[in-house]
Amino acid sequence: MFYFIGLGLGDAKDITVKGLEIIKRCSRVYLEAYTSILTVGKEALEEYYGRELILADRDMVEQEADEILKGADASDVAFLVVGDPFGATTHSDLVLRAVNAGIKYRVIHNASILNAVGCCGLQLYNFGETVSIVFWTDSWKPESFYDKIKRNRDMGMHTLCLLDIKVKEQSMENLMRGRKVFEPPRFMSVAQAAEQLLEVVQNRRERGEEPAITEDTVCVGLARVGADDQAIRAGSLREMAVCDLGAPLHSMIITGHLHPLEVDMLRLFSNLEGLSSLKMTDSSTYIS
Amino acid sequence: MFYFIGLGLGDAKDITVKGLEIIKRCSRVYLEAYTSILTVGKEALEEYYGRELILADRDMVEQEADEILKGADASDVAFLVVGDPFGATTHSDLVLRAVNAGIKYRVIHNASILNAVGCCGLQLYNFGETVSIVFWTDSWKPESFYDKIKRNRDMGMHTLCLLDIKVKEQSMENLMRGRKVFEPPRFMSVAQAAEQLLEVVQNRRERGEEPAITEDTVCVGLARVGADDQAIRAGSLREMAVCDLGAPLHSMIITGHLHPLEVDMLRLFSNLEGLSSLKMTDSSTYIS
Repeated sequence: MFYFIGLGLGDAKDITVKGLEIIKRCSRVYLEAYTSILTVGKEALEEYYGRELILADRDMVEQEADEILKGADASDVAFLVVGDPFGATTHSDLVLRAVNAGIKYRVIHNASILNAVGCCGLQLYNFGETVSIVFWTDSWKPESFYDKIKRNRDMGMHTLCLLDIKVKEQSMENLMRGRKVFEPPRFMSVAQAAEQLLEVVQNRRERGEEPAITEDTVCVGLARVGADDQAIRAGSLREMAVCDLGAPLHSMIITGHLHPLEVDMLRLFSNLEGLSSLKMTDSSTYIS
Repeated sequence: MFYFIGLGLGDAKDITVKGLEIIKRCSRVYLEAYTSILTVGKEALEEYYGRELILADRDMVEQEADEILKGADASDVAFLVVGDPFGATTHSDLVLRAVNAGIKYRVIHNASILNAVGCCGLQLYNFGETVSIVFWTDSWKPESFYDKIKRNRDMGMHTLCLLDIKVKEQSMENLMRGRKVFEPPRFMSVAQAAEQLLEVVQNRRERGEEPAITEDTVCVGLARVGADDQAIRAGSLREMAVCDLGAPLHSMIITGHLHPLEVDMLRLFSNLEGLSSLKMTDSSTYIS
């Protein structure tokens, strides 16, 4: 059997009892290491599981999938994914290869940021399409995430923004010279995401558009959701651009129409005065 | 500390290690018993945890919240919720009461149907707003879920439909007579949901509307996601109306625009010919 096992968010103990029991009996255990991270590293997981883990980066999963699946028809092999196994990506390629090779597979689910964001008090029912915000470069500044947020807001929906992760990236120079030298991992912060979003808002204004989002739009910044030291901060987009929520991973929500109970919950994570004054003065907060 | 602990989907072992450790040390443990169910009941959980559970129905949570929170400032109390604690409902009222009473709280996340549906191979990124389909009565047949599905489909998005649960309901007669006699629990099946949806499609046609959904629209029925005997079935809406996916809980997805890799995954759960013929002939399958 080939097992896709979600590790949840947070640390080693966020795995399910079922998942842990399976890991302990598998012949090989892979750790998918490019779509998300826990607050603890591979070594802490190995110690907790009492098992050696094989780090599976994007190249390995894409190019050596058959190697990963090898023998899973006769013994048990596990593939660990932070969050839910099908949260960030469906890993459909591995599933389809397994099925084609006559290997049975099973999914052990766990929390994903897509549902865990409910902890800030916004109703999961009121979220529209999830968007990704990527690191801009000098020459590549895509704005498509803005249009999706606008579309959600036009319908009164909140938008969860997943923030870019760059692990095992090569600089252009190293890539061109074929040198396997990797840049340090980078994780987009809420402040960086908010800055990029503010720049889009400004660009749209300069083009004469009425922006769907302003500096005063109510946002929620979340960091290390599920961990002991998780941080949640509600405030204006302007506040998000200068907040420091600490270590990764970060996510950001752009709110749509806020229900009174949602406002009450967001107050728990905000400068109360700030949020109530927004409520009174910023008509964009309520776009029913 | 007051703990909101997600039990995940499936059975007793789908709890996280962290959640289980907390349950074992709490002075009281409540089981929220009205928004979802596991494949095992209260007794199986009690045996597995080695703890007595206090069943918390909607009345108790809404009317005796202070009783539930009592003493959580001095000792640990846990409130167990199937899925993720903030999946089906935010339980914001309990959170706000805790905070107002000076009680610290913490959330132990777990899988929710909102992310676990990714197991059928549809990208979670491509889902729009989640809808609920309620049991129709002779005199109450709301169609609002249809309009939300239409809106999602117009944008090419998939729609997760959560299906109604009726637990501890009273008949009108018993309610009026003040008799605390409850009807057996009812859980809407995929077939029932599909039948109601087909009826709306027919109603819209009769009103001269071009329906956003037809009998041939590709849907996915899911039952007992995360359990050993989970069932997933992809096919037309017409097929959904006659499929039998067994015991609860059921959910249904109405697809939007399908990516080729999503089609490959759905084939794993379908009559291959059916799905490929749909792909060829039904233009509504691809509404890019």
